[in-house]
Amino acid sequence: MRPELIDIVLVNTSHPGNIGAVARAMKNMGLSRLTLVAPRQFPDEVATSRATHAADLLETARIVPDLDSAIDAAQFVVGTSARGRRIPWPVQDPRRCAVRMAAATDTGQRVAVLFGREDRGLSNEELNRCNLHLHIPSDEAYTSLNLAMAVQIVCYELRMLAIGGALPAAETAEWDTPFSTQDNMERFYAHLEETLSAIGFLNPAAPRQLMPRLRRLFGRVRLDEMELNILRGMLTATLEQVERAGGPVFEKPRTGSEP
Amino acid sequence: MRPELIDIVLVNTSHPGNIGAVARAMKNMGLSRLTLVAPRQFPDEVATSRATHAADLLETARIVPDLDSAIDAAQFVVGTSARGRRIPWPVQDPRRCAVRMAAATDTGQRVAVLFGREDRGLSNEELNRCNLHLHIPSDEAYTSLNLAMAVQIVCYELRMLAIGGALPAAETAEWDTPFSTQDNMERFYAHLEETLSAIGFLNPAAPRQLMPRLRRLFGRVRLDEMELNILRGMLTATLEQVERAGGPVFEKPRTGSEP
Repeated sequence: MRPELIDIVLVNTSHPGNIGAVARAMKNMGLSRLTLVAPRQFPDEVATSRATHAADLLETARIVPDLDSAIDAAQFVVGTSARGRRIPWPVQDPRRCAVRMAAATDTGQRVAVLFGREDRGLSNEELNRCNLHLHIPSDEAYTSLNLAMAVQIVCYELRMLAIGGALPAAETAEWDTPFSTQDNMERFYAHLEETLSAIGFLNPAAPRQLMPRLRRLFGRVRLDEMELNILRGMLTATLEQVERAGGPVFEKPRTGSEP
Repeated sequence: MRPELIDIVLVNTSHPGNIGAVARAMKNMGLSRLTLVAPRQFPDEVATSRATHAADLLETARIVPDLDSAIDAAQFVVGTSARGRRIPWPVQDPRRCAVRMAAATDTGQRVAVLFGREDRGLSNEELNRCNLHLHIPSDEAYTSLNLAMAVQIVCYELRMLAIGGALPAAETAEWDTPFSTQDNMERFYAHLEETLSAIGFLNPAAPRQLMPRLRRLFGRVRLDEMELNILRGMLTATLEQVERAGGPVFEKPRTGSEP
């Protein structure tokens, strides 16, 4: 995936605010090549304001008079399309489309992604110029996405490919403390059982399902060593209170005989 | 995937235009439950204008004064987070996070997704209330997404699952007891804090990172109602020992809700 080979092309955009929002959406996702085909109003301070820290993309944007000039060097052209057309065309969702685009850049191809007008998208003639149509699967009850939102989704899919496995695959990756070992967990459970007996919450003569349920709970969470130390500290402090109060309600479990 | 169980929660949004854009992004992706926590300016005609054909979501939006009111009935709370924090938290990208959320709704759970302020996101305290953190993998050169864009990406991932058919088996499928609600979790934390003070393990004058670490632990595990009852029972039995010993080491902290 080579983001520098991907060109976001906005065709006849009406509102400069959308152009600014597109620039921001692109830069957030690591893209930087923006082409504007005959924008109605540009440059414009509303665009600059909406771009916030992506105003540099507006300064380096190519401004061209027609679609031909925008895509003449592109080797793979994708057009965003809101719905079915009279002549069926190859159409894919943003995820599969992003895979196609990323693969094209991997072989050095230049890719252009076309986004149409706010009110009526790309014309049939423009869509006929594309190798592939991209359709964002919006809800039937309200299909019309804001232009910059559509760009955001496509750029996000490209970003997910660009980073590959950069984010932790497992939620517990890059944890700050090692996870506890099973022998430390067993010491904790013994300490817990002693404490629950001492405060009278667990009757060794009638333990029921208490310890299995607590084991399921703490086994599920996977305690790290610091958490285990905190819990052990809590148990120790609790037992000190029990001593201050005159001793345990139930003795530490041994053979199950009532004290 | 049951979209009607997913609540998009915007915390202290400053710009009404963003609220409108969020409503549109949601409706485009088939979501409809919007909650606004103390919005700075709402209702507002800018919000209505930006929502275009999603103004109905603004009319049915819940407006609440604080985060507690927003999430008290939620059983799975996801918080969007821009970057690493002092205490690492379980964090996933939007795709994996959407799978978790969709799986939760499949078992009838109510899900809340929190989005923070435009300028500084969610506070650490708010993030501590979440079971899982969601991070959108933006480019290091420009990490700050527009609020509505972030909502759009998350709703898009949920939409892809909604239309995508079968989901991977969820770890929480076929659980035997309902997962606890956030208001019950808050009562537990208040009870826990009181108890830890009473046994002298938590000094309210120097609490350090103890409660955030315990919140991370119990937020990560997602307690079910029976487990919560067991833990509450342990705390009550511990406090009885403290009374038997002559009273608490440290008085109950003054802030926080009653257990």
